[in-house]
Amino acid sequence: MALTPDQIAEAQALRATPRPTLRAVSEGMEARLYTPHPVLDHGFIRVIDYMGDDAAIVQAARVSYGAGTKKVSDDAGLIRYLMRHWHSTPFEMCEVKFHIKLPVFVARQWIRHRTANVNEYSARYSILDREFYIPEPGQLAAQSTVNNQGRGAVLEGAEAARVLEVLKRDAATAYDHYEEMLSQAQPDGTPQQGLARELARMNLPMNIYTQWYWKCDLHNLFHFLRLRADAHAQYEIRIYAEEMARMVADWVPLAFAAFEDYRMGGVNLSAKAVAVLKRRLNGEVVGQEDSGMSKGEWREFVEVWG
Amino acid sequence: MALTPDQIAEAQALRATPRPTLRAVSEGMEARLYTPHPVLDHGFIRVIDYMGDDAAIVQAARVSYGAGTKKVSDDAGLIRYLMRHWHSTPFEMCEVKFHIKLPVFVARQWIRHRTANVNEYSARYSILDREFYIPEPGQLAAQSTVNNQGRGAVLEGAEAARVLEVLKRDAATAYDHYEEMLSQAQPDGTPQQGLARELARMNLPMNIYTQWYWKCDLHNLFHFLRLRADAHAQYEIRIYAEEMARMVADWVPLAFAAFEDYRMGGVNLSAKAVAVLKRRLNGEVVGQEDSGMSKGEWREFVEVWG
Amino acid sequence: MALTPDQIAEAQALRATPRPTLRAVSEGMEARLYTPHPVLDHGFIRVIDYMGDDAAIVQAARVSYGAGTKKVSDDAGLIRYLMRHWHSTPFEMCEVKFHIKLPVFVARQWIRHRTANVNEYSARYSILDREFYIPEPGQLAAQSTVNNQGRGAVLEGAEAARVLEVLKRDAATAYDHYEEMLSQAQPDGTPQQGLARELARMNLPMNIYTQWYWKCDLHNLFHFLRLRADAHAQYEIRIYAEEMARMVADWVPLAFAAFEDYRMGGVNLSAKAVAVLKRRLNGEVVGQEDSGMSKGEWREFVEVWG
Amino acid sequence: MALTPDQIAEAQALRATPRPTLRAVSEGMEARLYTPHPVLDHGFIRVIDYMGDDAAIVQAARVSYGAGTKKVSDDAGLIRYLMRHWHSTPFEMCEVKFHIKLPVFVARQWIRHRTANVNEYSARYSILDREFYIPEPGQLAAQSTVNNQGRGAVLEGAEAARVLEVLKRDAATAYDHYEEMLSQAQPDGTPQQGLARELARMNLPMNIYTQWYWKCDLHNLFHFLRLRADAHAQYEIRIYAEEMARMVADWVPLAFAAFEDYRMGGVNLSAKAVAVLKRRLNGEVVGQEDSGMSKGEWREFVEVWG
Repeated sequence: MALTPDQIAEAQALRATPRPTLRAVSEGMEARLYTPHPVLDHGFIRVIDYMGDDAAIVQAARVSYGAGTKKVSDDAGLIRYLMRHWHSTPFEMCEVKFHIKLPVFVARQWIRHRTANVNEYSARYSILDREFYIPEPGQLAAQSTVNNQGRGAVLEGAEAARVLEVLKRDAATAYDHYEEMLSQAQPDGTPQQGLARELARMNLPMNIYTQWYWKCDLHNLFHFLRLRADAHAQYEIRIYAEEMARMVADWVPLAFAAFEDYRMGGVNLSAKAVAVLKRRLNGEVVGQEDSGMSKGEWREFVEVWG
Repeated sequence: MALTPDQIAEAQALRATPRPTLRAVSEGMEARLYTPHPVLDHGFIRVIDYMGDDAAIVQAARVSYGAGTKKVSDDAGLIRYLMRHWHSTPFEMCEVKFHIKLPVFVARQWIRHRTANVNEYSARYSILDREFYIPEPGQLAAQSTVNNQGRGAVLEGAEAARVLEVLKRDAATAYDHYEEMLSQAQPDGTPQQGLARELARMNLPMNIYTQWYWKCDLHNLFHFLRLRADAHAQYEIRIYAEEMARMVADWVPLAFAAFEDYRMGGVNLSAKAVAVLKRRLNGEVVGQEDSGMSKGEWREFVEVWG
Repeated sequence: MALTPDQIAEAQALRATPRPTLRAVSEGMEARLYTPHPVLDHGFIRVIDYMGDDAAIVQAARVSYGAGTKKVSDDAGLIRYLMRHWHSTPFEMCEVKFHIKLPVFVARQWIRHRTANVNEYSARYSILDREFYIPEPGQLAAQSTVNNQGRGAVLEGAEAARVLEVLKRDAATAYDHYEEMLSQAQPDGTPQQGLARELARMNLPMNIYTQWYWKCDLHNLFHFLRLRADAHAQYEIRIYAEEMARMVADWVPLAFAAFEDYRMGGVNLSAKAVAVLKRRLNGEVVGQEDSGMSKGEWREFVEVWG
Repeated sequence: MALTPDQIAEAQALRATPRPTLRAVSEGMEARLYTPHPVLDHGFIRVIDYMGDDAAIVQAARVSYGAGTKKVSDDAGLIRYLMRHWHSTPFEMCEVKFHIKLPVFVARQWIRHRTANVNEYSARYSILDREFYIPEPGQLAAQSTVNNQGRGAVLEGAEAARVLEVLKRDAATAYDHYEEMLSQAQPDGTPQQGLARELARMNLPMNIYTQWYWKCDLHNLFHFLRLRADAHAQYEIRIYAEEMARMVADWVPLAFAAFEDYRMGGVNLSAKAVAVLKRRLNGEVVGQEDSGMSKGEWREFVEVWG
């Protein structure tokens, strides 16, 4: 997406006048405030506000554990300890608010994360813009043959061209009709009543863009990122999550490093998997048949451990 | 909607074999279990499970208030007391699970109520059916001229016909293309890869039907009904809410009667409105100018009080 | 409470060095940050951080309602409109974090509000201080004879003195024993093992002080204040709520004014009460018998309307 | 705890009359309904109601994933798949309601799990019973010397005796004074006003028993059990959790088996730990210094892997 001159000017204006505050300040997040980062063809994400920093996490933990935290000498170590032992409440003490523009079918996945506050643009009140997500050719993938919810090979030339043509044409037609239905005049100028917005919107396809303010605490944001920045998430939500992850890394670098080590890069082992690994460490050769795992579990196990 | 023979047969099968239970049983809800009630042109709502009844609300309240509840002699009076004084936790002790088929644009409003559990049909995994909401002529309304989020007069003949024609044709075209993009053969039989489901779905308009299991406690369901069975809610969600309200009336008749009196039929007065009413009761004539209210508030006040 | 010199010095240090930020800043809240406000005999409450201001509420609402908000010309009017129509999500866009020191029996009421983030001092990890809430004589009230959960007349001299003596002596004894059980030496110096903290704490009475960080969005904070700053709330939690209310008034003055008018000073009428008022406005004399209300409801009705 | 004859009779009465229902029925849970299971010296836990069973989880998953679930041939395999991939919403479709009697200091830990519905006995309204938790000698442990929140060796004879004596005597004294303050007569019969219940309760120690109804969905209950049935949880909450776990095993045996394998018996590895294990599987000897882990992390790693 090329940002519009208006968007750039608005962000610059908001960034023009720092004001003094006595609150915790994260320099990494201050550098990012208001500036939209493009995502997909017409989307963006930007930080509008935040509360807290790494020190706020530590401060909250020390209130809870008092003298119990003294032996952990530094902040990084304490934050790693909290993450390792699933102490979630100190991470809840940080909060962030994003402004996000995204296709409706992505918004529908996103909203399933219920522990956030949302204000979405309402198509009951207002008219949506003519902006639709059309995938880049490299993202036009076939249905996966091994995974019911995944993508396989990228579509080849003629088929890809047909798909793009369909998506563009159907979106354009739907939006033309949306406008015609809303209008108080027919194309030839004859007056008409104009359909209610709350009804006309139903004609629009799910790749139209919407936007919202989305506010979340850091613990729940980590949960979101673990699911949505994961390789199995749909590409169109994953690149939003990846961009958010970079923002979080600038905001709370110690917490993000712990999150990467224990969650994003971590592995959950079942009791059965622990038993197999222990046998292997003892030099035993173990196969699926004597692992106690199903074929599906074994396939996933072997992906990690060979 | 005419239910399909399959749907009727499935509900009858589920209703065929009662089993003994020691749990609280609501006869009114037992009579409704599994049977789909048609809503809109292809939608339905049905109860799949429930927990608790009026007596469970009373039981929970008596655990909390112990001897404090003795003076309220009967269950109906206690339930009214709880509702009047915003004691929400006893109502949370009842739970209900619905199976609902609804258009996507309705689902998008519905899901904003976060205090519920949801399992929605996934268009990443599976292919949606060719079913779209097309309003009845009596619901094809113009944009309200006084309310940005409301409907005005019903569209007249020719315009209504054009709108219906557009909605039907665009939905049919979008679905034809959805199928063509998913297909592993072109219309003439030439093989193609077939677009991933998670991508193809973006071409579908928001009046397509989806379905979900939706589970909620009674306190939060009342909150949902207060907002969505209200006259200002969009018609297409309101008729689901009204059908749910009838189910709740059969399930917990005492709680529902209290809800109707205190919430649905009740009025919230601001401090300013209280002051105006007191002056009126004293025989004073009060107008907007000396009410302390804005014109908008005054208009709403006069709607109720004349 | 007289704040300790340490507490005063710590707050002054935190207030010494403003830093520049690009975020929304509330001057009223900046003036309050970190400074503890005494509550009860050893408690306090202070603001540690906040996010957003009145403008953030308006901004979120305008994202949602777009052109639909244009007719409301100013921020105060829009905020009043949102409050009047129960549009809660814009208020959720503001967040605040408090540091609170409070008696355990107050904390037990407080924690029932689940939509907040909490980090409490842990008596498993650390040793509690010897600080107990002892009511002032003016708060030593008898059980109400009309309200099972309320207070009646203030206790008279000799009885009040006995109660205070008991509360003080039992707290002192319990704490002495707490220390003795924890200690690795008996009073005479003989070594002993010392009981685990997580066990020894069970001997402490519920007027001992604990402390926590408590973080909440503005919508849920208003809900808390409506219940806990209400005249029917127990005095010992109400004075915390009243202090918080004053802080919120400084933080988001427009939102707080709307809250006061529509919630704190407002009245909820049942359908039955609406009907009675309408009959009275028509000059009819209505009594409890022909009101459709129970005696309890009627008593509450008459308290407001005479 | 020996249950009282009243409690036994009440449970028998509730179990006497099965009624027909069309809902999902779990035979394992029906066998447990209403019967209190003793926990600690005066506590208990019993199931009051439930919704759903293993089949309800499968049913909800199949609504979501449609054709995507067909390849998983049986219910047990599908439930294991859901657990392994953190698909939490199908587990939320089951709900359970317990009646629990527990010491206040345990209730204070328990209530931190916010995603549940609670009705607690109110000491504002009613008078608490004279029942206090006094640990068995085998549970009277010293403070751990290696873990700030744990227990070490069991106290030896004389010290244990002193502790038990203190706990019993202080509880008895506090309760005697509670009653005296509440009473409308002094011990010698002279009338007095009697302190309000909401004030008198503050004199009671935190080992007094309270009770509540606690309702939770299965996903959140699993989260509770993972933390509270864990070996690091305090004994006094852990034995409640262990009893609940046995109930859940009878209620939803397939889901519980998956939970045991993936959560209770499972292990979370950080990226660093994965790397170390892979090196070890390759025959390398790795120590803490070249593991990238802190000493604390290494200690925990070695506990599992040697």
